[in-house]
Amino acid sequence: MNLMIIGTGLIGGSFALALQEGRSNIRVTGVDKDKEHLQQALDQGIIHRSGTLEDVKEMDLVILAVPVNVAPTLLKQVLDRTTENTLVMDMGSTKEKLCRSVANHPRRKNFLAAHPIAGTEFSGPSAAFAHLYRNKKMVLCEVEKTDENLLQDALEMFEELGLEIRHMHPEEHDRHLAYVSHLSHISSFMLGNTVLEKEQDERNILDLAGSGFESTVRLAKSSPDMWVPILEQNREPVLEALDLYIMHLQDFRKSLEQEQYQDLYQDMKRANVLKPLLGKEPIEIKTTKNLQP
Amino acid sequence: MNLMIIGTGLIGGSFALALQEGRSNIRVTGVDKDKEHLQQALDQGIIHRSGTLEDVKEMDLVILAVPVNVAPTLLKQVLDRTTENTLVMDMGSTKEKLCRSVANHPRRKNFLAAHPIAGTEFSGPSAAFAHLYRNKKMVLCEVEKTDENLLQDALEMFEELGLEIRHMHPEEHDRHLAYVSHLSHISSFMLGNTVLEKEQDERNILDLAGSGFESTVRLAKSSPDMWVPILEQNREPVLEALDLYIMHLQDFRKSLEQEQYQDLYQDMKRANVLKPLLGKEPIEIKTTKNLQP
Repeated sequence: MNLMIIGTGLIGGSFALALQEGRSNIRVTGVDKDKEHLQQALDQGIIHRSGTLEDVKEMDLVILAVPVNVAPTLLKQVLDRTTENTLVMDMGSTKEKLCRSVANHPRRKNFLAAHPIAGTEFSGPSAAFAHLYRNKKMVLCEVEKTDENLLQDALEMFEELGLEIRHMHPEEHDRHLAYVSHLSHISSFMLGNTVLEKEQDERNILDLAGSGFESTVRLAKSSPDMWVPILEQNREPVLEALDLYIMHLQDFRKSLEQEQYQDLYQDMKRANVLKPLLGKEPIEIKTTKNLQP
Repeated sequence: MNLMIIGTGLIGGSFALALQEGRSNIRVTGVDKDKEHLQQALDQGIIHRSGTLEDVKEMDLVILAVPVNVAPTLLKQVLDRTTENTLVMDMGSTKEKLCRSVANHPRRKNFLAAHPIAGTEFSGPSAAFAHLYRNKKMVLCEVEKTDENLLQDALEMFEELGLEIRHMHPEEHDRHLAYVSHLSHISSFMLGNTVLEKEQDERNILDLAGSGFESTVRLAKSSPDMWVPILEQNREPVLEALDLYIMHLQDFRKSLEQEQYQDLYQDMKRANVLKPLLGKEPIEIKTTKNLQP
């Protein structure tokens, strides 16, 4: 199998590693505008050689794992170079604009719009690992527009990697993700900035921040290079989610100011509904100890 | 050693388990108004017998691990019953009001105000485990008001449990915690409610929420019984922290609405400063799979 990953970071790199783990006859070509990442990916065995878009015609599978603002143009360039048997997949966090951008492309059926619900707050080839996708969900959009045989191959591959499939309309995907993922990131980034503004002494953050703060602010370590384009592409739904979030915070603030403790209690109790929906084990956090003298 | 834990939940229970692990000659008496918790604590070997405040006079150490609104009255009742050699410690998340409440108590020197920076989002005896405090920080307030010999014993015990000591003024403690802990909880509770309001279909939360959402919203699983009193006791600093957080969110919202993407980038980049301060490993999350049919 000839695989090309465009973008050799966490998402593309982990996909390549996972496929290599299960298959012996696989040759991975990496494309990345970051030469350092390319070299790292080679060193780590994520890719076997570096290539260019001109190599697309020799590929069975091309994975696009790049920031979502770069994806539409790049996807067109890739599709232009496919043969009938090339499957092209993206793995971006927004789907509507990308799907619309290739709606009328003569090779639309070679494309599968995918979004694996997996990731960590780290990025680059050094963050990639083979088991990132195991037991995770994979959202697919507009599968009816993908060639049936290519889709079948993709589904088998996802099963091999331990991914569970969920189907969604691109617009529906983006609207849900605004709440369930994009808003979490903003809340985390802003929490980080609030604490950093107030706590000038880093030692107070290190010493007093329990694992609670650490998990809440975890996403504030994410890369703005990836996140600005996501927020830009999903601007309307994210603004709506942000407004609702600010409203909830203002209501809570008002109850606290007016000492309406029964209201605060109800508000918090309501959120407890999430308990059975999410993990039942405490989150294990590997804290970095003794950073300070 | 005769140990009493008042409150046999996560905090008190874990402390009793940790001490029992290192010491053979220890007898633990549990006091809890929740009879079910008392029984659980007995069954799990957290305590050896249940008792009442009248047993305080036979104790070497009394740990108060109760909601912070109950602590002031209870602490007075406990101190009233101590002998000269009894050390009484609380483990609450707010310190100013409690310290002030016993400032003039004749047995003030038997009391040590402590706050271990440790915990999970779960509660009750079933959540307790012996290693909760290992490699964690312990904040002590007003140590100069504690009897020197009793303090020395306490410091040795903390070292035994793997706790690292940090000294703080009660008011300073509460102000910092408002930012570094209490605000995280509110942001998490309100994020949970925002998503729950919008995502009526629980399946969307389960399937689309990556580990990012899960860690950001983790604290929304915390107990309101514990958190309403904390917010009540630390109301002023928390309101201040909340105002600053809402301001940051509104600024971010404005930048997104006006498509000032360079500003968004800078805002997110700023929060990235937290990266080297916190854990370097991705947070491992044990997700509950296949909850849905």
